[in-house]
Amino acid sequence: MKKRFKTITLSSTKQNQEILSIANQCYEVLKNKGLEILVDKNLSKLSFIGLKPSSKKTILKDSDLLIAIGGDGTMLNCAREYGSKNVCLLGINLGNLGFLNDIDPEDLTSFLTQIIEGRYVEDNRFFLEASLSTTKKTFLALNEVVIHSGEIAQLIEYDLFIDNVFVYRQKSDGLIVASPTGSTGYSLSAGGPIVHPKVSSIVLSPMLPLSLSSSSLVVKAESKICIKLASLREAQISFDSHSSIRLRKNQEINITKSKSIIKFIHPYENDFFEACRSKLGWSSRH
Amino acid sequence: MKKRFKTITLSSTKQNQEILSIANQCYEVLKNKGLEILVDKNLSKLSFIGLKPSSKKTILKDSDLLIAIGGDGTMLNCAREYGSKNVCLLGINLGNLGFLNDIDPEDLTSFLTQIIEGRYVEDNRFFLEASLSTTKKTFLALNEVVIHSGEIAQLIEYDLFIDNVFVYRQKSDGLIVASPTGSTGYSLSAGGPIVHPKVSSIVLSPMLPLSLSSSSLVVKAESKICIKLASLREAQISFDSHSSIRLRKNQEINITKSKSIIKFIHPYENDFFEACRSKLGWSSRH
Amino acid sequence: MKKRFKTITLSSTKQNQEILSIANQCYEVLKNKGLEILVDKNLSKLSFIGLKPSSKKTILKDSDLLIAIGGDGTMLNCAREYGSKNVCLLGINLGNLGFLNDIDPEDLTSFLTQIIEGRYVEDNRFFLEASLSTTKKTFLALNEVVIHSGEIAQLIEYDLFIDNVFVYRQKSDGLIVASPTGSTGYSLSAGGPIVHPKVSSIVLSPMLPLSLSSSSLVVKAESKICIKLASLREAQISFDSHSSIRLRKNQEINITKSKSIIKFIHPYENDFFEACRSKLGWSSRH
Amino acid sequence: MKKRFKTITLSSTKQNQEILSIANQCYEVLKNKGLEILVDKNLSKLSFIGLKPSSKKTILKDSDLLIAIGGDGTMLNCAREYGSKNVCLLGINLGNLGFLNDIDPEDLTSFLTQIIEGRYVEDNRFFLEASLSTTKKTFLALNEVVIHSGEIAQLIEYDLFIDNVFVYRQKSDGLIVASPTGSTGYSLSAGGPIVHPKVSSIVLSPMLPLSLSSSSLVVKAESKICIKLASLREAQISFDSHSSIRLRKNQEINITKSKSIIKFIHPYENDFFEACRSKLGWSSRH
Repeated sequence: MKKRFKTITLSSTKQNQEILSIANQCYEVLKNKGLEILVDKNLSKLSFIGLKPSSKKTILKDSDLLIAIGGDGTMLNCAREYGSKNVCLLGINLGNLGFLNDIDPEDLTSFLTQIIEGRYVEDNRFFLEASLSTTKKTFLALNEVVIHSGEIAQLIEYDLFIDNVFVYRQKSDGLIVASPTGSTGYSLSAGGPIVHPKVSSIVLSPMLPLSLSSSSLVVKAESKICIKLASLREAQISFDSHSSIRLRKNQEINITKSKSIIKFIHPYENDFFEACRSKLGWSSRH
Repeated sequence: MKKRFKTITLSSTKQNQEILSIANQCYEVLKNKGLEILVDKNLSKLSFIGLKPSSKKTILKDSDLLIAIGGDGTMLNCAREYGSKNVCLLGINLGNLGFLNDIDPEDLTSFLTQIIEGRYVEDNRFFLEASLSTTKKTFLALNEVVIHSGEIAQLIEYDLFIDNVFVYRQKSDGLIVASPTGSTGYSLSAGGPIVHPKVSSIVLSPMLPLSLSSSSLVVKAESKICIKLASLREAQISFDSHSSIRLRKNQEINITKSKSIIKFIHPYENDFFEACRSKLGWSSRH
Repeated sequence: MKKRFKTITLSSTKQNQEILSIANQCYEVLKNKGLEILVDKNLSKLSFIGLKPSSKKTILKDSDLLIAIGGDGTMLNCAREYGSKNVCLLGINLGNLGFLNDIDPEDLTSFLTQIIEGRYVEDNRFFLEASLSTTKKTFLALNEVVIHSGEIAQLIEYDLFIDNVFVYRQKSDGLIVASPTGSTGYSLSAGGPIVHPKVSSIVLSPMLPLSLSSSSLVVKAESKICIKLASLREAQISFDSHSSIRLRKNQEINITKSKSIIKFIHPYENDFFEACRSKLGWSSRH
Repeated sequence: MKKRFKTITLSSTKQNQEILSIANQCYEVLKNKGLEILVDKNLSKLSFIGLKPSSKKTILKDSDLLIAIGGDGTMLNCAREYGSKNVCLLGINLGNLGFLNDIDPEDLTSFLTQIIEGRYVEDNRFFLEASLSTTKKTFLALNEVVIHSGEIAQLIEYDLFIDNVFVYRQKSDGLIVASPTGSTGYSLSAGGPIVHPKVSSIVLSPMLPLSLSSSSLVVKAESKICIKLASLREAQISFDSHSSIRLRKNQEINITKSKSIIKFIHPYENDFFEACRSKLGWSSRH
């Protein structure tokens, strides 16, 4: 028997008219079912229907489902903010069909009702966790961690180790370390393969490598990935193309699969390949 | 406690002076250890030291280790012939460092002694198994199954399904379906990623696809891959670039991970990445 | 002052209802303008309107414009048959927008009238000419010459020389030698660049090369390209993916820009990039 | 009859012991031949043999040959500083064989003597010239102009026009516009083709484009390339991976072949393909 959601948070990264209207529609459906509804600070304008923003702490404590309204970016943002803390995520998709948020606003009421009644599919994805030799903080990324020079057309040089075994020394603009979830994103632009979400693995793809003999590398998700900066130049590390941190010379970066699992909720078996066809322009005639 | 080998078969695909000399050396080491030694029909010239070729049936029944002397091709050949039947394989490498056969003839005596004494590492690899809608026979490949037009520069058109879910319709010269073992071979030339042997997966890479939006796809090893030929033209299917079979129009090909596991024996933890550096020209300065 | 066409040939590679209807429409327009009209043997069914097929010899002698009705394949075929002999070619496009045949049947009457009245643009393209050390015959290709093993997944090995200077020895499934006209075809699938028709050059792209360090190479159109087969295996040579010839071991193939120029006729400046966007799916929003 | 050089400048970008020693050797050879010798400010330590640095102005006015001592970077630097002003350049190569500087220090005396006596080959290369809508200044690059976001993993969006014809709107990390000289550098890492120096052309290669349907594009050198930034975000423009300038939102960048020609001097016909084999790891066995 599937878990029934009791307290549901509405969330977005901006609050334009379209988003507010969808949030309002969600509110009506959920209220009619007698559920508790929270909103996060980014939907403060919903106070006109009596909903006041809750703090992140309250949301994490009380909420068991978070509905993210927006595009892939909103979903990534909500995932980083809340998803690693055992809150389920449901994405309502405003742009084109996304890989993570697949409810079309037109089908909102019927799909939302289904999900509330327990007819849904859970889609668990893992985070990448990066730690640096210079700080005790760790950093999460759902899609990818990128180590790079911080400047286009400036090479960095690094040694790659997998489970303490030396792989190669490489010069490139950077290195993309992606989860299967991230394999359809930036990693793909760097020539990486599309990795089905069920393949427990991590993909490493160099960005514009100096040597033509480089290729993408797929290792198992449990691998301990270590990158040692070999050059004297400074570099940077980015998480989901969002936040960036400076790296010192000769710094060591360790990346592993995080223990945090994020649970995406879909109204039916999410068709990964339909999303591929739609987003990547694969032929669908058959 | 590791299994001690009792009956060992010497095997190759040709028998030139170098190969015979190494086979002879193996024979001396093994005989001194009091082990039973067989030779396959391709080493018939070893009869000068009293070794007469055994039949494949005898080898499969009595032998618990097969030593393949040659390059990657010899290893693939022995794998297909014997490896799927629970015989362990050890490769003595005559050319450059191979991905599967990693004992250098110079280290032969010491490494062979180690292995006989039970100090070795097992490296299990899976076969791909292809079945056709027109025959009950199934076909094994250790590296890759290729569906292609049989003629260069002639497109085939096919629908790909993974676990009965439609993926895409594609026009290309062919499709390479590779195991992790095969990911460093022909699949790599088609732009596929290098997949570490421990990642339980299958890689699909189109060959010279008509559409630029194609990319390699990594699915889990347990996937049921189905290719339906959509074009009116005939096509072919190849196994490890070795044997080829004609496909009829509209034929359906099913590819799965075989239950057959092949056990490669190494004298120490096989360094996959060292083989990559050596074979692919990756930089090793560190 | 542009040349006025006097004798015009209608041509195709098949004669279905759609093609015959368009041919008939052309006939009406051209007859009203008082022009001589020929048809080639592939449009024999047009005899119902009194047009009897002319021989290739007659067409080449008397015709100054050939109208090819069909897709890119028909255009390539007419180009090889007639185009190298100083007959101008106009393509009426039945499928999607092609790179060479760009008149939409809907605009037929108006564009045809324009062209007859001398309002047109000439688009000159060169042929590649291949000669073999074993025969005095030479072979033309408008798009590309391909040297290959004749079998998928079988490598050939060859030495490449440009203007008698050694370039590399390479192992691959084959080598594509393409004109700018061919750069948007098979060569593109092999990772070659798109070369604008005005860049006087030849593109060489290896097919699934064994070494990752291979790349496409663009040399000037006047280069003398020589490929020496290095392997013992037989190979094949193909012209525009159409006709194929067996190559002996150690054979030498010489490829140069042919002196034959083909003149494509367009009703207006042919927009190469619009064809790219349409055929290759490049984004056109601006 | 070749031009005899009369006043020769020694130049570098740094002055370590090795460089000073080679500069000294050049000085001995040239002095014995009775030639005038200048040094640029970066070789100030040569004052110990009585050579005092000359100003750039003096060098440009008086010098007819500049000898650059160092690697590819030094050569690019000297090219930008002096090469566009009709001074010939000769490169003495300290690292591996370069594409532009090909005199090995071991052969210095004999090759230098040859060149002074008029036995040399001129190798003319063109610069790219970029102009911005916001300044009257123009900028030169020998290898490539790069338009990019200034931050890794941040997309820019732009419309590309060639000779005022719209090509595509594209989202990518950046766009590399390279001369044939630059085609073996950064452009190659982005998947661009190698373009022989004699092909009068410019190569455009997107960096990690969002859409897989992007490819490299080769246009004729005389093309007027225009890039219009479509996104609201700021961007940057770089010249030879050296100097960088900020671009405003909606800015327009025009790139053309510069009228400035740089004359590289080689002691013999420069073997472009030997440099490819050496630098790119192409196989040379034949």
